[in-house]
Amino acid sequence: MAPKVERFPLGEFTLLGGQKTTDWFLEYRALGNSQSPAVLKPTCFGGSILSNDIPVGEEHTLTPTKYFIILVGMLGGGESSSPSNTKAPYDGPRFPPIMLADQVAAQKKLVESFGIQKLWAVTGYSMGAMQSYQWAVQFPSFVQHIIPTSGSARCSPHNHVFLEGPKNALLADGRFKNGEYTKNDIPDLGLKGFARAYSGWGFSSTWYREHRYKELGFKDLEDYLVKYWDEGIGAMDPNDLLSLVKTWQTGDVSNIPPYHGDFKAAMQAIEARALIMPSTTDQYFEAIAGEYEVLLMKPGVGKYNPIISIWGHQAGASSNPIDTKFYDDSVAELFAETEAKLKA
Amino acid sequence: MAPKVERFPLGEFTLLGGQKTTDWFLEYRALGNSQSPAVLKPTCFGGSILSNDIPVGEEHTLTPTKYFIILVGMLGGGESSSPSNTKAPYDGPRFPPIMLADQVAAQKKLVESFGIQKLWAVTGYSMGAMQSYQWAVQFPSFVQHIIPTSGSARCSPHNHVFLEGPKNALLADGRFKNGEYTKNDIPDLGLKGFARAYSGWGFSSTWYREHRYKELGFKDLEDYLVKYWDEGIGAMDPNDLLSLVKTWQTGDVSNIPPYHGDFKAAMQAIEARALIMPSTTDQYFEAIAGEYEVLLMKPGVGKYNPIISIWGHQAGASSNPIDTKFYDDSVAELFAETEAKLKA
Repeated sequence: MAPKVERFPLGEFTLLGGQKTTDWFLEYRALGNSQSPAVLKPTCFGGSILSNDIPVGEEHTLTPTKYFIILVGMLGGGESSSPSNTKAPYDGPRFPPIMLADQVAAQKKLVESFGIQKLWAVTGYSMGAMQSYQWAVQFPSFVQHIIPTSGSARCSPHNHVFLEGPKNALLADGRFKNGEYTKNDIPDLGLKGFARAYSGWGFSSTWYREHRYKELGFKDLEDYLVKYWDEGIGAMDPNDLLSLVKTWQTGDVSNIPPYHGDFKAAMQAIEARALIMPSTTDQYFEAIAGEYEVLLMKPGVGKYNPIISIWGHQAGASSNPIDTKFYDDSVAELFAETEAKLKA
Repeated sequence: MAPKVERFPLGEFTLLGGQKTTDWFLEYRALGNSQSPAVLKPTCFGGSILSNDIPVGEEHTLTPTKYFIILVGMLGGGESSSPSNTKAPYDGPRFPPIMLADQVAAQKKLVESFGIQKLWAVTGYSMGAMQSYQWAVQFPSFVQHIIPTSGSARCSPHNHVFLEGPKNALLADGRFKNGEYTKNDIPDLGLKGFARAYSGWGFSSTWYREHRYKELGFKDLEDYLVKYWDEGIGAMDPNDLLSLVKTWQTGDVSNIPPYHGDFKAAMQAIEARALIMPSTTDQYFEAIAGEYEVLLMKPGVGKYNPIISIWGHQAGASSNPIDTKFYDDSVAELFAETEAKLKA
């Protein structure tokens, strides 16, 4: 039986940019008993609700036997409201820019629809990590823990510039037609350019040097580039990709009132126990950014818990058994600490 | 008075791939007295003969008052024979693949035309570094020193994948027309994609975080991206760019007889004193590759002398006064050591 993905209508929903919507929705999958402690896991860039980037399942710490786990698709990601599935006036290239704060505002509606008054945890990988941070800043008292992997609380200038590559590779394809392409004439060379301009960033140089793509089942480097990157990105909608890039590039948890860009103040607002899990070999969401964020948080709030891995950015995406186990063990320890405190 | 660039006809010149040419040439500039110890400096990717990537001049260690300095343009780089300036049958997209060994074979003809029997040094930045290594492997007894900066002796898998980004961004532009574009209709969006897909790699994340592009005179990040990258790459010929990428991606000093890919054997063949100067924050020609190469060389041949810098790849390109001084001092010390030995 295919896992059940459900649709939550957002009703009247106004974006930070002022655009009013009435027919937008989030797609999600809920696992476990809704009376259990609730864990929210937003999608990553290019991921889907059923992606197993964060380890979820009976064999993991985040098990539906113990937690009510909501896997939710980001706006723009192709499942929830996105350029590719939205009607006029916000269809295709007219889809408005989505801020991290919009993602979280929408997700809060979904979460509250279950009667949840406080999330036990928000956890996510990459852009899912950014959303986890955003939750803790935007609704500090609503979140008990955040566990962002391979992410940070804002897009660094270097990260911004990296994203200019894939974005402009896609825009180079004349068939993109300012986003007015048709399904029968998509900018496939632009999508390939996007994929290849991304590919060097996704894993570490050591991972490449050791030909670790073979562990993922690819026979050589080109086979990996074609099947993992070209086909993966090629399956996505170009306008959706650009919407996600926009959310990512503008991502900064302090870009909401009352912080207005005061990043330190935003970090100080976090009340959730924050287990910060960047990868030591991530080339764009660098570990040092997470270390710095913990220093900015109030004492005892953040814990810097890097994934020591050669899997680069993908270390935070259950890409290999060792890093997956590290996530499971780290989160189990975090939750046990909190449970002990709550009992005391 | 504009510096004088001269043209050296290669005469009958056969490429490793078997293509025979009769009208190819190298462009170069020679500084100083041809009786002085000779230093060869090939261009880097995207550079020109007059680029000041390696510090050359009276205020530097490599001064024309002491050395005969030959600044030579790579085949494919737009000055020496390249897709953009070659006649049929090798014009434009029909320009044959150029190996590092072809570059060095051509340069040897030029060098010998001056009656030079041994080069005092070959030094270069990035692809210029690759050519320096190639010299030492291909003609071991012809080279006294090599000083490669921000480069290595082969293109790593990670480096190869990085280059897939800019390349495929350019190929995404339909106006590239398999290289048959005309001067009035160039793939300018593809060139912009190439530039942006390269931009994140050129400097370190710390450099970006500290907004060091302002030191280069740019007012903000976008100003830097437009003027440094878009305009820099935009001025180049698309087929030339792809020719250089091909030389780079296939670059491996052991890809010639008798090594046939035996990288260690090629490193062991080096007789030149090799001062290996990668940048500690280079994201694609990683410092660790240079450290490893020195370990593979015969004892006493190589010295690992990394540029400790936040300027990333550009640290080896005289991008800032501190790293430039480090080059000058390091090379002066190297030469003094050799001079002392030769006198002893």
